[in-house]
Amino acid sequence: MFEKVLKDPVHDEILFEDPLLWTLVNTSAFQRLRRIRQLGTSYMTFHGAEHTRFAHSLGAYETMRKVVSHLQRECDWPNNQREVRLALCAALLHDVGHGPFSHTFEAVLDVHHESWTYRIIMEDGALRSTLDEVDEAFAADLVSILRKDGRFPGIEALISSQLDVDRMDYMLRDALSTGVSYGQFELTRLIRSFTVRDGRVFVKRSSLHTVEQYLLARYFMYVQVYLHPVTVGSDVLVEKILTRVRDLLRAGERVDIPPALEEVISGNDPSVEAYLRLDESVLLYAFHLWSESRDAILKDLSSRFLDRRLFAPIVRDKPSPGEWAALRTTAKAVGFHPDYYVSERVCNIPGYDILGHGITLIGADGEETDLSQISKLIRTLVPSQEHRLFLPKELIGDGPDPLSHRVRSILYSKS
Amino acid sequence: MFEKVLKDPVHDEILFEDPLLWTLVNTSAFQRLRRIRQLGTSYMTFHGAEHTRFAHSLGAYETMRKVVSHLQRECDWPNNQREVRLALCAALLHDVGHGPFSHTFEAVLDVHHESWTYRIIMEDGALRSTLDEVDEAFAADLVSILRKDGRFPGIEALISSQLDVDRMDYMLRDALSTGVSYGQFELTRLIRSFTVRDGRVFVKRSSLHTVEQYLLARYFMYVQVYLHPVTVGSDVLVEKILTRVRDLLRAGERVDIPPALEEVISGNDPSVEAYLRLDESVLLYAFHLWSESRDAILKDLSSRFLDRRLFAPIVRDKPSPGEWAALRTTAKAVGFHPDYYVSERVCNIPGYDILGHGITLIGADGEETDLSQISKLIRTLVPSQEHRLFLPKELIGDGPDPLSHRVRSILYSKS
Amino acid sequence: MFEKVLKDPVHDEILFEDPLLWTLVNTSAFQRLRRIRQLGTSYMTFHGAEHTRFAHSLGAYETMRKVVSHLQRECDWPNNQREVRLALCAALLHDVGHGPFSHTFEAVLDVHHESWTYRIIMEDGALRSTLDEVDEAFAADLVSILRKDGRFPGIEALISSQLDVDRMDYMLRDALSTGVSYGQFELTRLIRSFTVRDGRVFVKRSSLHTVEQYLLARYFMYVQVYLHPVTVGSDVLVEKILTRVRDLLRAGERVDIPPALEEVISGNDPSVEAYLRLDESVLLYAFHLWSESRDAILKDLSSRFLDRRLFAPIVRDKPSPGEWAALRTTAKAVGFHPDYYVSERVCNIPGYDILGHGITLIGADGEETDLSQISKLIRTLVPSQEHRLFLPKELIGDGPDPLSHRVRSILYSKS
Amino acid sequence: MFEKVLKDPVHDEILFEDPLLWTLVNTSAFQRLRRIRQLGTSYMTFHGAEHTRFAHSLGAYETMRKVVSHLQRECDWPNNQREVRLALCAALLHDVGHGPFSHTFEAVLDVHHESWTYRIIMEDGALRSTLDEVDEAFAADLVSILRKDGRFPGIEALISSQLDVDRMDYMLRDALSTGVSYGQFELTRLIRSFTVRDGRVFVKRSSLHTVEQYLLARYFMYVQVYLHPVTVGSDVLVEKILTRVRDLLRAGERVDIPPALEEVISGNDPSVEAYLRLDESVLLYAFHLWSESRDAILKDLSSRFLDRRLFAPIVRDKPSPGEWAALRTTAKAVGFHPDYYVSERVCNIPGYDILGHGITLIGADGEETDLSQISKLIRTLVPSQEHRLFLPKELIGDGPDPLSHRVRSILYSKS
Repeated sequence: MFEKVLKDPVHDEILFEDPLLWTLVNTSAFQRLRRIRQLGTSYMTFHGAEHTRFAHSLGAYETMRKVVSHLQRECDWPNNQREVRLALCAALLHDVGHGPFSHTFEAVLDVHHESWTYRIIMEDGALRSTLDEVDEAFAADLVSILRKDGRFPGIEALISSQLDVDRMDYMLRDALSTGVSYGQFELTRLIRSFTVRDGRVFVKRSSLHTVEQYLLARYFMYVQVYLHPVTVGSDVLVEKILTRVRDLLRAGERVDIPPALEEVISGNDPSVEAYLRLDESVLLYAFHLWSESRDAILKDLSSRFLDRRLFAPIVRDKPSPGEWAALRTTAKAVGFHPDYYVSERVCNIPGYDILGHGITLIGADGEETDLSQISKLIRTLVPSQEHRLFLPKELIGDGPDPLSHRVRSILYSKS
Repeated sequence: MFEKVLKDPVHDEILFEDPLLWTLVNTSAFQRLRRIRQLGTSYMTFHGAEHTRFAHSLGAYETMRKVVSHLQRECDWPNNQREVRLALCAALLHDVGHGPFSHTFEAVLDVHHESWTYRIIMEDGALRSTLDEVDEAFAADLVSILRKDGRFPGIEALISSQLDVDRMDYMLRDALSTGVSYGQFELTRLIRSFTVRDGRVFVKRSSLHTVEQYLLARYFMYVQVYLHPVTVGSDVLVEKILTRVRDLLRAGERVDIPPALEEVISGNDPSVEAYLRLDESVLLYAFHLWSESRDAILKDLSSRFLDRRLFAPIVRDKPSPGEWAALRTTAKAVGFHPDYYVSERVCNIPGYDILGHGITLIGADGEETDLSQISKLIRTLVPSQEHRLFLPKELIGDGPDPLSHRVRSILYSKS
Repeated sequence: MFEKVLKDPVHDEILFEDPLLWTLVNTSAFQRLRRIRQLGTSYMTFHGAEHTRFAHSLGAYETMRKVVSHLQRECDWPNNQREVRLALCAALLHDVGHGPFSHTFEAVLDVHHESWTYRIIMEDGALRSTLDEVDEAFAADLVSILRKDGRFPGIEALISSQLDVDRMDYMLRDALSTGVSYGQFELTRLIRSFTVRDGRVFVKRSSLHTVEQYLLARYFMYVQVYLHPVTVGSDVLVEKILTRVRDLLRAGERVDIPPALEEVISGNDPSVEAYLRLDESVLLYAFHLWSESRDAILKDLSSRFLDRRLFAPIVRDKPSPGEWAALRTTAKAVGFHPDYYVSERVCNIPGYDILGHGITLIGADGEETDLSQISKLIRTLVPSQEHRLFLPKELIGDGPDPLSHRVRSILYSKS
Repeated sequence: MFEKVLKDPVHDEILFEDPLLWTLVNTSAFQRLRRIRQLGTSYMTFHGAEHTRFAHSLGAYETMRKVVSHLQRECDWPNNQREVRLALCAALLHDVGHGPFSHTFEAVLDVHHESWTYRIIMEDGALRSTLDEVDEAFAADLVSILRKDGRFPGIEALISSQLDVDRMDYMLRDALSTGVSYGQFELTRLIRSFTVRDGRVFVKRSSLHTVEQYLLARYFMYVQVYLHPVTVGSDVLVEKILTRVRDLLRAGERVDIPPALEEVISGNDPSVEAYLRLDESVLLYAFHLWSESRDAILKDLSSRFLDRRLFAPIVRDKPSPGEWAALRTTAKAVGFHPDYYVSERVCNIPGYDILGHGITLIGADGEETDLSQISKLIRTLVPSQEHRLFLPKELIGDGPDPLSHRVRSILYSKS
């Protein structure tokens, strides 16, 4: 009997009963996820948020293992071992393409972690050969599930929807690591609330409030953790550092830079091997290098990140073009290049998405209803936005000097 | 009223009521601790163990804040604000000199984190100038406490003894992050059990079993977590990588190496600035560089670490000289340089230390007793050792081939 | 230094630093609360829900102690020791008038626990003389606070409002005991969010989402725990037992009954001494007595409770008069007296109450806003109702027999 | 598919997949356990300790369900459904014979809960007929397991040994309810450490430290919770109340007493029906009755219990006959009947029991070792005793009056 057990702070134990999954865990591509934090720069706000995509991927796998075990017992689904393996492998590998400080990195460098996930599964030697041992269509089917092609609708829904094993693990894990209760929900009950009809996944109507709790936990995690202004300010700083490097390289300036990073930043199509060499240690090391750069802007921005002198967030309405110009002028006047030191971010708080992707409840009588139809609470969860400005603290200040006064008068005017 | 609050997974909140402490937190030297894991390579065994010395230092501070608050209320000690500040600053800064993968790094490079802590406190500009604002003897007094010079016996005992705020925080934090219950103990009760007489710290005799629980939790953390064979195997690998680099440099070979690391590895007396540039991102980046080294040994060892193909631990008695030679010969015969691929480690499980550093209980009648005198359990906690050998998995194998057979016959012979 | 510590599963420790409070804890009237469960018959649904009003009262006191400690430090409020003591005593004693299976008991017997709380504080010898030691107006001021006379608006709000120490403790305690996560919220942060201006309590606007979490936790506790259909069915059973006894006594029938209970049930104005002799052991013992009553209805109902053969809940619209009559006729036909075996309950899920009793947020600029004005989520929390019918399981059945069929056709018709 | 789920604070959920077990849960005899606390009078010390034998029995069942599931998967044991059912039923029903305030009640009244468990299983109509539906030998086999006749050695060991599902549940449950961490251990790992050879249960040698942790948790629960002096003082009070009632009845005095209790106290062989009517509500009600007794001693003792004016514990060596006589004389002189007010208790702290009942570890090589042979820690766990005296607080006092002085001089003399 094959059995490997990993100790886990969220699920107590993560259990491997199929050698295939264990082999995947031990590939170089998967082990790389140990060097990428799950929550990007959130550790600048919540010092406990050091947990990795490696831990989360294991947790998503474990959650899938429990969901599948429940559904096999209760619904005899999936009714073949190959689909069980597809579900488990998809849960384990769904994040394998993530890069360092993912979303920011992707935004600046036009990289898409999903595409990299597909490429890595298909092209990384160790991963691919392991998957090929099942059968030669297995890797492609796995990618098909992650792409949501519609060929395995049940598994696809469990991997990526508003109620999937990805979110189920990360909310609990992020809550535990940061130390907040906002992301807590009734995991075991929620797992038992799943049911399958004709290959589609539903939630039993009797678990209405359990799903409400889960979706509200997600809302609270967004407003209290994921979009915390200090975290977003850290993201902006990373974005500006990478932008400055890219701008310098484009301008033909010489910049000390780790080769793997240069290959990606240069915008040429990097190889899977080069991409897999990228992780947060590489990026942090680059920040170290750049904190001694001859370019004053790059040097300053990188030092700010390492020493955690972050941009200050100001929550306010979108500035008018006049206000915006005034801010840039003021920043420039005191030596802050406005392209790198004056920023705006629109933070999206996701709502409950009803357009064809809702959570469908099913009654004992088989009647299907979208969750939002019977939950007033859930109907309030519509997407919303918050505008924020980010500036160096020195620019805002709190003193009576003319500069602070001028910036504050711009920022806090009634726009 | 000054108040800063950080959310913490162990203590719920970490509270700053004195701007001095908050200024220290925001120095570059302290923020560097975000890039050094509390448990070194333990994350290779327990994937949750990504928590940092930054988080632990905050937790040690918070524990000290509570201990001092209790002792002031109950014993009117310390009876002046300066000593309170010394206690809090010492707790916050006690680990500021730690380097990456501390103990291994120190072993290979003859670096002592304690000495670096003293130097950084005295020499780092931002830290020193902040401390100097209290008074000009403050920084030196802080170092005196960390050195245990005996001038502040009460504070020294709370900072470093068998029952100190350092251990009180790290046991709970390590337990939470790894997901084990072994390190749990009754923190609040233990804090209330402290009492002070004539400037010396005692534990109330009525809390005997609470201290027993704490010391046994420490024992269990050692045997189940800190000295886990897989973790020690990871340490050995880091040691061998650093040793190889040092050997190559000494031999005048060219090795790609981050400058800050080279300065330390070269064995010259590095500056505080250089030392503070070292962290685990630098070391991990170096492993990346070396995983593509022209030196085959360095390349192989570094790749093993990044991909987590660790040395396999074998728990057994110390090999005889003959066995040892046979192992080295066998390894060499198949291409493993024995200096780097065949290792031995003696792991020390600390006991309860009675020699002048015991935990002294005090009865309601003022009678003082060493804990070990009245606790049979504690008397069993004597230092012990475990011998282990570490070899590449390929060398041990489990197959019927002659090599595996030969190594196994050496390893598992009755020595 | 006076210090008494009680170990508590919710707050870790409950700390007494004022001998006055400790004396109150040790009165007979307060100790009686050990024999009254916090959640009435909920233990029939959640077997962990055995925690008592004694534990909850201690927890409400501890929460108040922390709130007051925070407010004194931050707002210098209350600015005198007498008001601190009023706040702490009010939190400790707010439930001292509760009877067994409170709400049901009160409904049948026209008893109001609030009035009994006031009477007990004023009339119980030990309690009163303890309070009188503070000063002779202290007991009356305490009652004034519990009555919400408006003389101590800040303390009154902390004792009884939508955000008070009562709810703050019971939600966490009920969640822990039942084993659900629904009632979890960020207690420490919420406590720090309180502020006082001109003697009125506000919540800082920056803690908007923390209050939202708290109110949603309350919502989830209502729909998932407090109004659980099985619990309500248990309440209905207790109600019917007490009703039957009262009816028998009014009809002049002889019923074995504990004297203290008879004194209350008889409807004469019972003495404080008699009332304080009532607790859940008395009521459960009465059920034992009645389970052997000569009255068949009383005997049957009481046995059902002891053996947990509860009424089955049916969630559906209010029956029409015709349906209602049909149900009663059917029940009667098979020997179930409809007055005792066919019941209806309207369960009220409380909403966020805005009418003059809302939670007022206060901005850094002093601007006051009702929570509902800025939280869409909270605006969905309007009072709602659920109609439920309760019948013996035997009446509903699930078999093909004519009786089950008839009842089911009435219950599940489209009304 | 049959499935019933109960929410549980220790195990999250308790799962029933076999209707047989669910039917047993719903018998009157099993539901009675809702009215008997797991920890007797411990709630007088730890106000959270209100959890019942009902909850514990469910938890022991759930633990057995997990153990059996593990052993079936790993060792194919038990290899038939009948033995699985025996194991589950034995775990569920092992405490069904417990009476109110068990150990004290049993001591005074010469009642043995084990014998009552056997009788109830064999004689209670509903239980027996449910068990008979499996087969006619099933009930007898169940009793055989609980008696440890040796016919089902594996199941017997899991039900009652030093490492059984009974202890595994109660330590975690008692720890949670009281709020202490002392009873925590690694449940899941411990369950996986079980293995079976030739029908005997072993623990894998690799789980040595996990078993050590479990046994030390038990030690700490004994010294910190189960034998807490205040709890033992409460037990002594219950004992004295029951003794006084028995003495009065034997002397032919008239005592108000619930009939079911009288039947047991009278010492005649009570019927199963009478015994099952006994629970803690009956005993507490009796204390209410007796708190108004004409017998001054009974009245006083009962009031003391209800109002929690417990005997004060004095931990000291066994008094000499002279001291003993002096104490009794002094007590009598001030009106305390020494037979009821001066007591001695020897509290036994159990050790690790090696005599034929040890925990046997088994190595990968099949070698069997008793745990104590390889664990020094465990060898310190030898049975020990603590002598305690219990007196009314009034007798000890702390004042300068002659009485207090005299008693104290007796108590605190060097005996």
